[in-house]
Amino acid sequence: MKYGIAIFPSKKLQDLANSYRKRYDPHYALIPPHITLKEAFEADEDTIQEMIPKLHQISDESKPFNLNVYKAGSFSPTNNVIYLKVKEDEKLMSLQEKLNSDGLKTGQSYAFVPHITIGQELSDAEHSDVYQSLKMKDINYEEKVDRFQLLYQLENGSWTVFETFHLGKVR
Amino acid sequence: MKYGIAIFPSKKLQDLANSYRKRYDPHYALIPPHITLKEAFEADEDTIQEMIPKLHQISDESKPFNLNVYKAGSFSPTNNVIYLKVKEDEKLMSLQEKLNSDGLKTGQSYAFVPHITIGQELSDAEHSDVYQSLKMKDINYEEKVDRFQLLYQLENGSWTVFETFHLGKVR
Repeated sequence: MKYGIAIFPSKKLQDLANSYRKRYDPHYALIPPHITLKEAFEADEDTIQEMIPKLHQISDESKPFNLNVYKAGSFSPTNNVIYLKVKEDEKLMSLQEKLNSDGLKTGQSYAFVPHITIGQELSDAEHSDVYQSLKMKDINYEEKVDRFQLLYQLENGSWTVFETFHLGKVR
Repeated sequence: MKYGIAIFPSKKLQDLANSYRKRYDPHYALIPPHITLKEAFEADEDTIQEMIPKLHQISDESKPFNLNVYKAGSFSPTNNVIYLKVKEDEKLMSLQEKLNSDGLKTGQSYAFVPHITIGQELSDAEHSDVYQSLKMKDINYEEKVDRFQLLYQLENGSWTVFETFHLGKVR
């Protein structure tokens, strides 16, 4: 079974992201707009049950942080992916690192560029058009993030939330 | 903002439900297969923040239960909705009642028929065809349920999970 870890931003930011995703992201219907903290990885149920206390420990020891979305970005020429760029907050970077190190290493590790994807699998021409127009937009959102979610993938490619983790011990 | 409370069954049961929903349920892309515990209701953020401790109290005081899905059902002639019928387990019925009484009364209350919708907004002819064929199927799933989710709805009609509640105090 495939699992992943993500942050869902506020409804306001998700609605904004979806206004683009609807047209430019073929994954639009598979998962709400999100910031990936841990890329999809394969795990059986026992492994996940062992992982969950570690995730709780990490979330307990973390603190809520400010999410600042400030412009459109692109992973081109590596990938024709267009995204909303998230400012590299120290707490966010440290959280992502913890979720991908030691007992939680899974798969390849890329340099973490926090982002909310709004377009992907675009042709070069489409990518260029959309990105040029988005670069002009004045984007500036700030909000508090106090949780992340562990999800699993269904056979049709869509994702279901399995558990919520709160940043900072709350209960 | 619209909120709702639902149980997501196991991946196996969700995959089964989606094999029908893909063809017969226009809400297929908006939310994973689920058992609704509390119908969509309007609430502002303050109201939800007041509600959450009550939901935790209810989940803490509840116990995990066995979910038994045993045949296809239909709400026709009221609605051309086809669903997987869930056995009326005492713990499930009591949980749904608690989530819809006292300080948590929201909107109209129907008699609770636990189910997983697999088809809706069908024409009479289509409903009749699909239901006739599904009634013949041998369906029998049993699994443990140990959590429910509070969700909110985005502008495009899709649902995002806000928080997970565990049945029985676990942390």
